[in-house]
Amino acid sequence: DMKIVVIGATGTIGKAVAEALAARHEVVRVSRKGPLKADIEAPSSLARLFESTPGVDAVVCCAGSAAFKPFAQLSDADFALGLRSKLMGQVDVVRAAVGYLRDGGSVTLTSGVLAHEPMPGGAAISLVNAALEGFVVGAAIELPRGLRLNAVSPPWISETLAALKMDPKGGIPAAACARAYVAAVEGKDRGKVLDARAYAR
Amino acid sequence: DMKIVVIGATGTIGKAVAEALAARHEVVRVSRKGPLKADIEAPSSLARLFESTPGVDAVVCCAGSAAFKPFAQLSDADFALGLRSKLMGQVDVVRAAVGYLRDGGSVTLTSGVLAHEPMPGGAAISLVNAALEGFVVGAAIELPRGLRLNAVSPPWISETLAALKMDPKGGIPAAACARAYVAAVEGKDRGKVLDARAYAR
Repeated sequence: DMKIVVIGATGTIGKAVAEALAARHEVVRVSRKGPLKADIEAPSSLARLFESTPGVDAVVCCAGSAAFKPFAQLSDADFALGLRSKLMGQVDVVRAAVGYLRDGGSVTLTSGVLAHEPMPGGAAISLVNAALEGFVVGAAIELPRGLRLNAVSPPWISETLAALKMDPKGGIPAAACARAYVAAVEGKDRGKVLDARAYAR
Repeated sequence: DMKIVVIGATGTIGKAVAEALAARHEVVRVSRKGPLKADIEAPSSLARLFESTPGVDAVVCCAGSAAFKPFAQLSDADFALGLRSKLMGQVDVVRAAVGYLRDGGSVTLTSGVLAHEPMPGGAAISLVNAALEGFVVGAAIELPRGLRLNAVSPPWISETLAALKMDPKGGIPAAACARAYVAAVEGKDRGKVLDARAYAR
C-alpha cells in the first residue's frame, strides 16, 4: 500500500477520493481547515506539508477555485482568482511535491470537462481547466525519478447539483468520480487527462 | 473587403499574416513599437487602439511571450510572464475588442502546438497555449452580435528555427502559417482551434 496525501480532502470530490483510497492505502487528509492544514495558494504551506509528512508515494489535489460568471461580467479579479487558485495553486503542488515524493510516485491534479465542453458562464473555468491539462501534458515528460503526473477531469457532481437545487442526474456521484483518481494513483499513466465519466460505470 | 487590426505585426508570424491579409483587405499594423502602438500587457493601450480605429471587422493577435526553460528551473516569474503576456494579454484583446468590433466581426488569437505536443522546456508554454484554447472554446459561445472567436495553433516556424541555427525543415514558413489566420478571418468558424499545419499545403 501507499502513503497518499489528499489536498482538498474536505470538499465534495476530495472527501470521496480520500475515502476510496483509504480502503487500501494510508491517506493523509489535508485542507485549509485541516485536519492537516495547507493552502495551495500559499507555497510555503505546501513545503511545510511535505517537510512534516515524509515518505509520500502520491499526492492528489482536489482543491482550487475559479469564477463562474457570464463572460461580459468577468473582471480582472475573476480571471486572477482562477489563475492564482485552481491553476497556479495546483501547479505549485507539483513544484513542491517533486522534491519530496518517493521514486516512482505520482501527482494527480483536477481539471474539469469545461476545458472542452463550454457552457455560458464558464469561460474563465474553461481557460483554467485547459491550462491545467496543458501543464500536465507538458510537465509530465520532464519529471525526474519516474514520477508520474496526471489530471482527472470531473463532470458535474450529483451532490453539487443537488446542493444547487438542480437535477442530480445531470452529474455523477462523487464516489463514482473518485474511481478516476484511484486509477490515476494506482495505474501507470503519465501526462494523461482521465475523463471521470469513463470510470463512473 | 474588411478592415483588420493585426497586433504583433512586426513579429515573424504577424508580419506574414499582415502581408497575406493585405492582398484583399485594409490592414492596420499594430505592435509595441508601432507603426500604430499598443501593448497587449497594457489594457488601456488596447482601449485607445480601438477608440482611435473605428469600423474594425477583425482583429488578429500574434503577440505575447512565455518562458521556454526546463521545468525544474521555471520560476514564479517565468510562469507569471506567460500568464500576464501571451495568455491574459490575448484575453484582454478579446475583452477590449468586443465593445468595438462591427457586428459579425472576429478575433483570432495565437496558441501553439505545445498545448498538446510537449517538449522538454515547454511546460510553461504548454500551459499557456492550452489555456488560450480553453478560453477560445469557452468564451466563443458567449460573444454578442455574431462575433466569432478562434485561435490558430502554429508549429515551429522555419524562419524562427533558422534564426536559432536549427534546421528550418523542422517547421513551416511563416507565409504558410499565415494561411490559417486568413482562413480564421475569412471563414465561418467560431470557438475553433486551427492547426496551422493543416493549412500549410
